[in-house]
Amino acid sequence: VVADSGDSEFGYLAWLRGQLPQRVPGLLVGPGDDCAVVAAGGDYLLLKTDSVAEGRHFVLADAGAVVAGAATPVQVGYKAVARAVSDIAAMGGVPKYALVAAVLPQGAGKELREGLLHGIKWACDSLGVALAGGDTTSWDGKLVVTVSLMGEMQGAMPVLRSGARPGDALYVTGALGGSLAGRHLQPEPRLAEGRFLAGVTAASGASKAKTARRVKASSMIDLSDGLARDVRHLCVESKVGVRVEAAAVPVSAAALARAGGDPEKALQAALTDGEDYELLFTVPDSDAALLEASWPSQVKLSRVGTMTADLGVVLVQRDGSSRELPVGGWEYAL
Amino acid sequence: VVADSGDSEFGYLAWLRGQLPQRVPGLLVGPGDDCAVVAAGGDYLLLKTDSVAEGRHFVLADAGAVVAGAATPVQVGYKAVARAVSDIAAMGGVPKYALVAAVLPQGAGKELREGLLHGIKWACDSLGVALAGGDTTSWDGKLVVTVSLMGEMQGAMPVLRSGARPGDALYVTGALGGSLAGRHLQPEPRLAEGRFLAGVTAASGASKAKTARRVKASSMIDLSDGLARDVRHLCVESKVGVRVEAAAVPVSAAALARAGGDPEKALQAALTDGEDYELLFTVPDSDAALLEASWPSQVKLSRVGTMTADLGVVLVQRDGSSRELPVGGWEYAL
Repeated sequence: VVADSGDSEFGYLAWLRGQLPQRVPGLLVGPGDDCAVVAAGGDYLLLKTDSVAEGRHFVLADAGAVVAGAATPVQVGYKAVARAVSDIAAMGGVPKYALVAAVLPQGAGKELREGLLHGIKWACDSLGVALAGGDTTSWDGKLVVTVSLMGEMQGAMPVLRSGARPGDALYVTGALGGSLAGRHLQPEPRLAEGRFLAGVTAASGASKAKTARRVKASSMIDLSDGLARDVRHLCVESKVGVRVEAAAVPVSAAALARAGGDPEKALQAALTDGEDYELLFTVPDSDAALLEASWPSQVKLSRVGTMTADLGVVLVQRDGSSRELPVGGWEYAL
Repeated sequence: VVADSGDSEFGYLAWLRGQLPQRVPGLLVGPGDDCAVVAAGGDYLLLKTDSVAEGRHFVLADAGAVVAGAATPVQVGYKAVARAVSDIAAMGGVPKYALVAAVLPQGAGKELREGLLHGIKWACDSLGVALAGGDTTSWDGKLVVTVSLMGEMQGAMPVLRSGARPGDALYVTGALGGSLAGRHLQPEPRLAEGRFLAGVTAASGASKAKTARRVKASSMIDLSDGLARDVRHLCVESKVGVRVEAAAVPVSAAALARAGGDPEKALQAALTDGEDYELLFTVPDSDAALLEASWPSQVKLSRVGTMTADLGVVLVQRDGSSRELPVGGWEYAL
């Protein structure tokens, strides 16, 4: 039991959970994972809500003024949807329906209103989501867009944050860091990879007779706040620790460029910049070879560490020495 | 086809619909009703999202300063949830799960953070909703709270805005107007009444053998923007008009008090103040007597008009003369 809401994200979450009833019929996973999981009609449904706020998640391009890193209304709409879809991917689900609540600056012009919707549509269309409804309000503040999603597991079990075991191998998709160079505006949710990691293979529907052994991730999360911070969610929820190998962390070209080629700075960026929207997940060590052999995606796969019984979150540096993994985190970056 | 998004709510909605695919498998009702309706596992599910923004839907009480009509954080949390639940009621559904996205002013104190959650919990507990998840962000703007809900029809058919026919009787629950006196902070979603109007009676589960004829509303909406404005949604979606009888409109005591006892001013308030969160619905005229005889609620029921084949939205005044019903609307009231 946590007495008050504290100052940290982890403290607030712990406090919040203490306030909620422990068990609600039909609600399988409540606050604390990428999505909530509810049972309905013989399937598991995923529910997610996520806000982006002007000045915090994006700087809005002003017609006339040129601001470095500024987003167009279309990009804001795209990002708002894609971020939330990334959380569905992190459960291994299929996104189905989106609701969008837009709180618009008073007097917002056609460019903002229509651009936003075009971005939302672009994301929905390319990610296979139907725009089911929404709500618009105008006020004397800046733009806030909240996207809520319903997804389906379609017979698979959702991959939670809480299933990692000591000895499990830790993997990450793609390359990390430097998202502020532009990528943060165009998340590419790893839907196909997430589905594969929930044990659904392209062939599994077609040939149920020949059941080759499938890989299934033991835990998974999407990287929104940076590996250093997000891996802690896997550790806390799974009650394990982790050793992350610095030499194995995939550093993006953007991170290296922004670090002026300095590999240490670039590594730090890869660990803490955030907004990578890649998948961070674990598999039993005995499945690591099968995972790597059967990985169905063009997206790079990197084994970056191992979960431990010891609860520490440790970075093993290139020289073999180890230290506590610093959290850093994107929230101070914008 | 509407060429651009225009300036009005109706124009924007028409434009938005023109942008969306006409039919999506599984999505039975998209934008334009109180909730979206999707098919999942043999039932209809309802999806709703709704934002409240500081200065627009509430004025936040500042510790120390006293502001007339100001809301406590607990009241804001309650209102945010209850408003959205009212839309589930307007489909005849059962609210199940809530997601809350809070965008908090930077440095928001414990009183705001915890008060908000307590209000959210209070609403969820009293309305039978489980808080399934959420998202918190802080920024340098004011408070925005977005609540998204999943509801279930549990075997009943959702009551849409589009089912009214010429000749149908128009009814409203409760008494209208004057919500700014305080009621706007404590919506009482008419869940039991909505369920009854979807054809679900308290007895219908228990005694399926004896099927007494049940009332079912042909169309329904909840009153958030005032009867004068919201009845237009029923008319537009159902392609009918309406004659509203001024003498039959139930005026709240608060509206009368705020109007200094002037019945014409009070009537105007009842028609346009908004935030009543009552149900406005139609039934076939042949069911009107049965409705009134079997009405299961303590909440007052008033027949306020009749739907017409003529598309006008007409107010029949106390002296028998009639005029176009002025829209007014709460949005200029705060």
